[in-house]
Amino acid sequence: MSQQPPRPAEPRRTAVTVAVCQIAPQVGDTAGNRRRARVAVEEAAGRGARIVVLPELANTGYVFTDADELLAAAEPLDGDTIRQWEDLAARWDLVIVSGFAELGEDGRAYNAAVLIDATGLRATYRKAHLWNGEKTWGFTPGDAPPPVVDTAHGRIGFMVCYDLEFPEWVRLAALAGAELLCGPVNWPLYPRPEGERPGEIVRIQADASVNRMFVAVADRTGTERGQDWLGGSVIVDADGYPVTPLHLGREAIATATLDLAEARDKAISEHNDVHADRRPALYALPGGKQS
Amino acid sequence: MSQQPPRPAEPRRTAVTVAVCQIAPQVGDTAGNRRRARVAVEEAAGRGARIVVLPELANTGYVFTDADELLAAAEPLDGDTIRQWEDLAARWDLVIVSGFAELGEDGRAYNAAVLIDATGLRATYRKAHLWNGEKTWGFTPGDAPPPVVDTAHGRIGFMVCYDLEFPEWVRLAALAGAELLCGPVNWPLYPRPEGERPGEIVRIQADASVNRMFVAVADRTGTERGQDWLGGSVIVDADGYPVTPLHLGREAIATATLDLAEARDKAISEHNDVHADRRPALYALPGGKQS
Repeated sequence: MSQQPPRPAEPRRTAVTVAVCQIAPQVGDTAGNRRRARVAVEEAAGRGARIVVLPELANTGYVFTDADELLAAAEPLDGDTIRQWEDLAARWDLVIVSGFAELGEDGRAYNAAVLIDATGLRATYRKAHLWNGEKTWGFTPGDAPPPVVDTAHGRIGFMVCYDLEFPEWVRLAALAGAELLCGPVNWPLYPRPEGERPGEIVRIQADASVNRMFVAVADRTGTERGQDWLGGSVIVDADGYPVTPLHLGREAIATATLDLAEARDKAISEHNDVHADRRPALYALPGGKQS
Repeated sequence: MSQQPPRPAEPRRTAVTVAVCQIAPQVGDTAGNRRRARVAVEEAAGRGARIVVLPELANTGYVFTDADELLAAAEPLDGDTIRQWEDLAARWDLVIVSGFAELGEDGRAYNAAVLIDATGLRATYRKAHLWNGEKTWGFTPGDAPPPVVDTAHGRIGFMVCYDLEFPEWVRLAALAGAELLCGPVNWPLYPRPEGERPGEIVRIQADASVNRMFVAVADRTGTERGQDWLGGSVIVDADGYPVTPLHLGREAIATATLDLAEARDKAISEHNDVHADRRPALYALPGGKQS
């Protein structure tokens, strides 16, 4: 039989406003990146958001040339950027989830993400599935599962960009009871058939619906060293349908007011439940290896 | 490290035409169901298809009232329907993948699917994830993974309807080297936000793109005992984009000519491969349980 996900013991608030902030960080402009993030968070908070998502590597930008540049830009978890986000979260009673180029105590660079609330830094995560140049610039992949944190504004999981394309990874967060999965991303712009919604968003929709879980993705925008970005920030509901308009390719903050408690109900028919219907004993590969 | 999927030793044909046949089976009309399937297969073959997909439970229809009716309608694997499909496959050199209400040798009913080629019945499968009324009508769930079969027209995996909504299950077929995943389905019609593509199709797109594998889904149409059906038959490419127009809610045969060999290349960037990038050792739940 399948396991049931943990469920919070009692009901909380009914609705919360979530913001995804599509900003344009730039490699080499630490002060500017910090300012862009602050301005976006303040605007989102002013519009009533209590959960604010920023893009991947929001403190540094993305397009590094080599390991030296990355190591010089990455920051420790007790540095100025995290302190600023802690101040913002405390002042506005926010949950902030953001991508963060982390300089570890081991001297290595991680494509990390953090969850900060009014009490401070609650959880950190290091991207487990690295994308393309991240492998050559010297990012070290993480080995720990995506965190799921009980906050005053909901039970929130998070992971980074390409991680979202591994349904097994998304499932871990969902089975740990995430009502909302936050995804800081930097989605490179690729061609797609005319009239088609970008595949990255399609995959987010599937992540949400196969788990009956809300998903909020903050993408970046702007061109950086010739790299164009999709700018596909979106919030999707637990049925997998977008609830925010797309602002492809430009700076924007999108917000949606969600009843996260809906994600605790995994039923999709009289006799079906997207988690209880799983048959994990069958999901091993022949030979007993984990699939 | 991740395992590599098996790859066929040498290249085969380059392109094959695949047809998804959206027909309208009816409970209680065995002869009519057999005729509808034959007419559709012959039309698809006449249009050049060599892989033909029929809907879930194509031999019986779907909306049973109880176990007695189901058991009376289900057929053994050596019955007239399979024999007809074997004749059609031999005559036209086809691979036929169809849903099939199977009466097992154990006297139980299974929501099965079969793969038949010019040499006869190659593989059978019993739906592992049952949908709603299937649980009360007395279908027994299967316990075996989705088959993946080397055929003259490509390496083909298959599973049935709700199975497709479990990314772990789809992954098994993909890791076993399926170039094309065929899905006989019966998708009930549900409301959806205006302008949105049905979530069932969105999830198929994700199934395809996270595995770089083609997917061909044959849905049913027609109203049966008051039940409306989506009629969402579709073929999607290995990037997850549809390559056939939708014919929602009416009988239709859609075809696409695919180069299935494309699905053997899992690379999506200079340094990324959707299967090699998996980190299965991390996909276990805390406590070592299979996620």
